[in-house]
Amino acid sequence: MSTEIESTVKSCSKLGCEIPEIQFYLNDLVRNDVNILFKGLTVIEEKFKNVPWFAMGAPGSFHGRLYPRNSMHLVHSSYGVNWLSKSHRLLQTNLKVPKLTNEGGLPLNKGKIYISKTSPPGVREAYLSQFQEDFLLFLKGRSPEMVSDGRMVLIFHGRKSADPTLKESCYTWEILAEAISYLVSQGVINEEKLDSFNVPYYIPSQEEAQDIVDKKGSFTIVAERGSTWSRPEARARNLRAFTEPMISHQSGEEVMDKLYGKVIDILVLKDSKQGNETSGVGIVLELKKKKI
Amino acid sequence: MSTEIESTVKSCSKLGCEIPEIQFYLNDLVRNDVNILFKGLTVIEEKFKNVPWFAMGAPGSFHGRLYPRNSMHLVHSSYGVNWLSKSHRLLQTNLKVPKLTNEGGLPLNKGKIYISKTSPPGVREAYLSQFQEDFLLFLKGRSPEMVSDGRMVLIFHGRKSADPTLKESCYTWEILAEAISYLVSQGVINEEKLDSFNVPYYIPSQEEAQDIVDKKGSFTIVAERGSTWSRPEARARNLRAFTEPMISHQSGEEVMDKLYGKVIDILVLKDSKQGNETSGVGIVLELKKKKI
Repeated sequence: MSTEIESTVKSCSKLGCEIPEIQFYLNDLVRNDVNILFKGLTVIEEKFKNVPWFAMGAPGSFHGRLYPRNSMHLVHSSYGVNWLSKSHRLLQTNLKVPKLTNEGGLPLNKGKIYISKTSPPGVREAYLSQFQEDFLLFLKGRSPEMVSDGRMVLIFHGRKSADPTLKESCYTWEILAEAISYLVSQGVINEEKLDSFNVPYYIPSQEEAQDIVDKKGSFTIVAERGSTWSRPEARARNLRAFTEPMISHQSGEEVMDKLYGKVIDILVLKDSKQGNETSGVGIVLELKKKKI
Repeated sequence: MSTEIESTVKSCSKLGCEIPEIQFYLNDLVRNDVNILFKGLTVIEEKFKNVPWFAMGAPGSFHGRLYPRNSMHLVHSSYGVNWLSKSHRLLQTNLKVPKLTNEGGLPLNKGKIYISKTSPPGVREAYLSQFQEDFLLFLKGRSPEMVSDGRMVLIFHGRKSADPTLKESCYTWEILAEAISYLVSQGVINEEKLDSFNVPYYIPSQEEAQDIVDKKGSFTIVAERGSTWSRPEARARNLRAFTEPMISHQSGEEVMDKLYGKVIDILVLKDSKQGNETSGVGIVLELKKKKI
């Protein structure tokens, strides 16, 4: 994209018209480290040598409003809308899934941390319902912020099947649950913690996501694509980078090395038994803001 | 201001017109801690309960461009334009004054860290010239960013006299230089460090600042005001908060407690000898962006 912008700027300079200025708004939760983000802006500088550009950090939750009306031409979120959340606009101390307990207050999803084959139907329903609510909030937040005909490109973890208990979406969480169970059996992690913990993350099918877009009504789907990506050697490291923040909050940072050591053991064992059938699915949705 | 905005929003709601949205852009250098700034945004939330507002962090040096064209209605800088700077837009690793050395490369301002009565004329000229250059860069940066008739309110440390060597502007730096000299005599700080160090900060007279505004030409001065503020007991603590970042960079953090202990000793001694004639001057300039 940067090359196309550079050439537009060049023709503008030649024709004497006003040179476009690019403004990047980079959103993250307040509790995350913005300093690292800002120090990394030199990457943009490398890419846009001849284009005037400005970058802003926009703190807060994307489940609410972040930007002024009609200010966005292109919105992009990469593996963002998988995160479930119900919390304060700025402080955002807790990412949450609905309380997965039965009428007696006992945990519904014992020994698991995500939807699994052995989870009762209530778990699956609660996850889907929370995803529907949150993704709708995301679209409601962006809709007034975008100009008519503005584009939104969303990439998220997805699944091909309607069944949310298949390996394509559960594999990571099954392995993590297995590793946590092992640490419970060793007395390192309290059993209650495992039983009451569920990841604030949902892996929808393309249809589930599109249903919400249709329900919101202010966007048209202009393109969709699902792609499979395999996860080779670096998988355990990626998995740790991605899941540690939510797990360590629950179980404490001191047990993380033990936990991810066990994850590697399990992965190595499983990989030796089966082929590369544990690949994930990335879904890309391109949306267009309807004219008001 | 928040009360006036709230009442505007209320009348808008009654009349059915579009409710105004307030956007705050908060600028700081990349090397400073943005996380603290973002966590402090709850202060805005307290003030604007019924007004939609958005806050962005804008990283970079205000001596260059920070925001898109025609995006600012009100610009405010509080004790910002005193800082002298020549450096990289984003990384901004060094705040600088011009190299204050003579033709032989020897330090011009030995034993002092700012313009003082004993400094040779070259020191005063170099400071003024750097301030003129930097304040012009500040105005050049803001000018295209502001809408026609947009306002800018600048508050800065200033002085009433044309003479930059009087106590009203030099007092803080004289005391710091004296404390550093003491640590040099104790062998805690290297003498060369003191001789080569000069603060990247200039305290202009109102006329010096107004001259630059006139030179830039794109702003009209609509109001100016100078006010004297006394610095009571908390002075030494304020002085440390304000000066430590630039001194510790030069002399190392480990000697800071010793240095500011000495500063307090000197302040107590001087205060017992003289009255409250060491107050500083705050100058407020209100500028209006001319119509293009």
